[in-house]
Formats: sequence, C-alpha cells, structure tokens
Amino acid sequence: MNLPLVILASKSPRRKQILSEAGFEVTILTKETEENYPETLELTKVPAYLAEKKAAVFKEESCNNLVVAADTLVLLDGKVLGKPVDSADAIKMIQSLSGKKHEVITGVTILYKKKFTTFSDTTEVYFRDLTDDEISYYVEKFKPLDKAGAYGIQEWIGMIGISKIVGSYYNVMGFPIEKAYRKILALKEG
Amino acid sequence: MNLPLVILASKSPRRKQILSEAGFEVTILTKETEENYPETLELTKVPAYLAEKKAAVFKEESCNNLVVAADTLVLLDGKVLGKPVDSADAIKMIQSLSGKKHEVITGVTILYKKKFTTFSDTTEVYFRDLTDDEISYYVEKFKPLDKAGAYGIQEWIGMIGISKIVGSYYNVMGFPIEKAYRKILALKEG
Repeated sequence: MNLPLVILASKSPRRKQILSEAGFEVTILTKETEENYPETLELTKVPAYLAEKKAAVFKEESCNNLVVAADTLVLLDGKVLGKPVDSADAIKMIQSLSGKKHEVITGVTILYKKKFTTFSDTTEVYFRDLTDDEISYYVEKFKPLDKAGAYGIQEWIGMIGISKIVGSYYNVMGFPIEKAYRKILALKEG
Repeated sequence: MNLPLVILASKSPRRKQILSEAGFEVTILTKETEENYPETLELTKVPAYLAEKKAAVFKEESCNNLVVAADTLVLLDGKVLGKPVDSADAIKMIQSLSGKKHEVITGVTILYKKKFTTFSDTTEVYFRDLTDDEISYYVEKFKPLDKAGAYGIQEWIGMIGISKIVGSYYNVMGFPIEKAYRKILALKEG
C-alpha cells in the first residue's frame, strides 16, 4: 500500500499508533487551540466541531500535506465525561460507567489543499458491574488521567470489564481508522 | 488482583497474550485431541463442544489447577470458514467476507476440580467492501494461515477493513476474556 504522509494535529500516542499501524507515515504537529464550543451546539456534534477547529490552524501546512485532527467525547446519560482531574475523580467516573452503556464519539477532520472533510463515528460501549476493588486496582496501576472517561478499552479494565461494543473498537481507542482510511484514500485519489 | 494460575490447553499465542494481559499467570499444556464433532450438531454449538473435548483430557491436572480450553469458529452465511490451506485459499476466504457480516463464535471450557464450566460467546463482524489490492497485500504481508477466516482483527486488515462489530472484540481475537474472567473468579470463590 502506497499511503501518504499524515500530519497529525494531536498529541495522543494512541492516535499516532493507530495511524502508523494502518500504514501511514505520521508526523505530529500541534498548535494550541481553545477547546470550547457554542453552548447551543448538540453534544453529539461537539467532537466534529472541535476536530475542525483543531485542523483549521493548519491551512498552510495542508497545501502540501494531509492534516488530520480528532476529538473524542464520552457521553453517559446525555452528559459529557471529560478527563479526570485526579485519581479520586477517575474512580468516580468509572463507577458511573459501571453496569451501564455509554457512547464514545470521535470527530475527525482531514484537511488537504485547504479543503475540510469532517465526519464523526459513534461506538456504544457496555460495562458490566465492576467491583470497587477492580476500579481502584485499575486506577492505581494504569493512572488513566489522560483519558476521557478515565479508561482505555485496550487496557486491563477494558478487557475484563467491557461485555460488548457496537461499532468500531479503534474509535473507542480514540481514532476511527476504518472510516478515516477510506476518506484519506478518496481525497488523495480524487 | 490476586488471580489464579491458568493451564491453557491451546497453542494460540493470542489466547495466551489475552489471558496474561488480564492478569493471569499462564502455562501452556497441550495434548492431541481430534477436532471432530457429530454431524447432527448445530454449527453454533460446535465451539463449545470442541472446547469441552479439548479440556476433557486434563481431568487429572484440574485437581490442583484451573484448566482453560477454547475453540473459535467463523460462520459466514451459515457455513464454517476454517484455517486457509495456502495463500490463494486465504485470498478467497477474505474475498468471501468482503462487504458482508459474519459471526465469530468462541467456545470456552473451564475445568476445575474435574468440574466443567462451558459457555460460548458470539460477535458479529462487518467488513466493508475490500479491494483485491488490499486483500493480496494483507495476505502476502501477514500470512494469516494460522487463523480461522484468514484474518486477525488486531492486524492491518482488521483496522482498515472492519467497519463495525457487535459484541466482544477479544472474542474475535480468539478469547472472550470478560466472560471467562467472571466465570473463573466465581469458580475460585465458590
């Protein structure tokens, strides 16, 4: 496969790993953008909005390169779970996910020759009832403070605690690679 | 987490990896068993039947140890896809999966103190339309001859080709760890 170089506008090591394993050569380049959005915006549309905002500051770079930006949001009962502020917060977050379904939505913007292609992907994730021991063991050992919703599906708690997903696994990790792969190839060919 | 030692009656490196990452200490021990089943058996029940058969030869070992056996089956349009015999067969198999939904069923038997606990888990997997180039690139580079259905969900083709799953991701890799974890803990406690 002859895949293009991608400039990834994200510091997430998981996004870099996914794009690399899918065969892209990845360079990370980030610029500060404020992660805010209009109060009136539907929550399900926030990740796409923020991905576009993160990509927008790379217009110049996109003349010769393909720029990819992404934003992931965890929605539980219609409310956003962000990144936990500390271990106690992480424990509270995972307790709130225990025994329930939540949604992971990732918005992706691909910017190429100053043209924006934006989409989002949603995966439903079902946690079984977790014990307090399982939750505190996980938080202490894996320190998931850099993760929205306070868990990584690819880590211990994802293996032993998630009974079912509906959608893309890699989307829950932070990047819907199957959809992005198709859009990138279409852009480079079109 | 204080998890028991597991004797894994399977040569699959993926099963060993999943059990290890879930926190179990794993020893591999295999004995030859014939992987045949009654012609009248419903196909969806075959993996559980074969897992039990693979475990049954470890009754003695189960007096002091927990023995785990598993069998995975790929079902497309009601027909079984086994392991491909060569690259051409692998290409044909993946072509048959392209653009379609199939099912991955793993049967697991946990044998402890000569008592059998058997269950199976099913995951639906949806491949998008794959190109011939994608399929032959994958088969040449990843040589999936040891895999039922000729693909690994955790490999390149799984990343860029699978649009959706319904169920457990690890079940498609070959071992439904969330269910097995709960059963093993219940057995050791009960």
